[in-house]
Amino acid sequence: MKVSELSELSDVSIASIKFYLRERLLFAGTATSATRSDYDETHLARLRLIRALIEVGGLSVAAARGVLAAIDDSAMPIVDVFGIAQRAASVALTPSAQPSAQPSAESLERVDRLKSERGWQTSELDPGALITARVLDTFAAIGRGDLLALLPSYAAAAEMVAHADLAAVTASGPDRRPMVETVVVGTALGDALFAGLRRIAQEDMARRLGLPGSSLSPRTTDNSSRNVER
Amino acid sequence: MKVSELSELSDVSIASIKFYLRERLLFAGTATSATRSDYDETHLARLRLIRALIEVGGLSVAAARGVLAAIDDSAMPIVDVFGIAQRAASVALTPSAQPSAQPSAESLERVDRLKSERGWQTSELDPGALITARVLDTFAAIGRGDLLALLPSYAAAAEMVAHADLAAVTASGPDRRPMVETVVVGTALGDALFAGLRRIAQEDMARRLGLPGSSLSPRTTDNSSRNVER
Repeated sequence: MKVSELSELSDVSIASIKFYLRERLLFAGTATSATRSDYDETHLARLRLIRALIEVGGLSVAAARGVLAAIDDSAMPIVDVFGIAQRAASVALTPSAQPSAQPSAESLERVDRLKSERGWQTSELDPGALITARVLDTFAAIGRGDLLALLPSYAAAAEMVAHADLAAVTASGPDRRPMVETVVVGTALGDALFAGLRRIAQEDMARRLGLPGSSLSPRTTDNSSRNVER
Repeated sequence: MKVSELSELSDVSIASIKFYLRERLLFAGTATSATRSDYDETHLARLRLIRALIEVGGLSVAAARGVLAAIDDSAMPIVDVFGIAQRAASVALTPSAQPSAQPSAESLERVDRLKSERGWQTSELDPGALITARVLDTFAAIGRGDLLALLPSYAAAAEMVAHADLAAVTASGPDRRPMVETVVVGTALGDALFAGLRRIAQEDMARRLGLPGSSLSPRTTDNSSRNVER
């Protein structure tokens, strides 16, 4: 198919397609003349994956290039793909945080203790520990050490989600390609998926607790008919 | 204190402080001369909160201004502050997603069904449902409808986290100010906190499952001494 068709089917502008080609996220089509190339289904699938990572997962172009290269490198162990995907999606998470900003020893120790409590074993400098410790530092900086009380529930929930993540990876095996794609997509989009569900659950719970001035309560009645077992 | 002292104590550059003053995120100090102002502890606390929201929470300046205004507006019901914080932190989450991009009716219906299954009641267009539906659309677009299997575990985990979130809000009452601050900080930083813990749990589980080519396994031995009950 022509680039115009590829653009239409993928809902990605021709300018963006050319940008992704230049940036080597999308592999070149088959040249049919000096100025034209032919594209196929593999280009379409790749474009949709690029869009998912950048537009919904929030990855930078450089981060997306890194995880796509990891998917393409059939010799790379899946665990290493996990690490690359985690790091890529972590940049999207705390965009302005300096990568050089090292969390305090105290917060890293707190994370280490949590890992012991839960029996979690990881490499020394996993990206997750750095992100977690940075948030704990922020709680301390704004004088809200009381928010450490969130840790046990968050950790239990994280374990539940990680279990589902790994089950999805295993279920998409035994071929490497769908497995690593699950790793990358699950890591990049899982944060957004969880955050969306957390917001729904929060709104429901804020209403149940009758937080002061709940302006939403009248709608409870309107919705009650929808709350039936299916 | 002088602006230089404020900068030192908050670890925010003088240029950034002046920017936050211009952008009305930070309220003005008391003028002591035509070119100098005096700042106090309230400015320092506010600056640390601004930093937490923007640098760790990933909020835009406009979004941070919105949630700070919500904190300051003592007449605003806490449930409304929740809504504003959720929307502000959602922009940070899917930065490139067009706000106009409406999820498909099919995905919105899937989210609605999930809400029924869990007995969640929310307003019609809660930000969480839009984020969740957009992720489901993305799964469909890349031909990975199988990842819908993640939903039940993610939803159960989200409920657990939302429960902890609301408990933290209630625990910081009965005064309005710490309660709304918990809402804002918890919403903006909770995503990062959870994502960090999820990554740690993922790494631990990838290792346990012995995913193909786990290059990390030798380190398990190094760490085993840390995995003791305390």
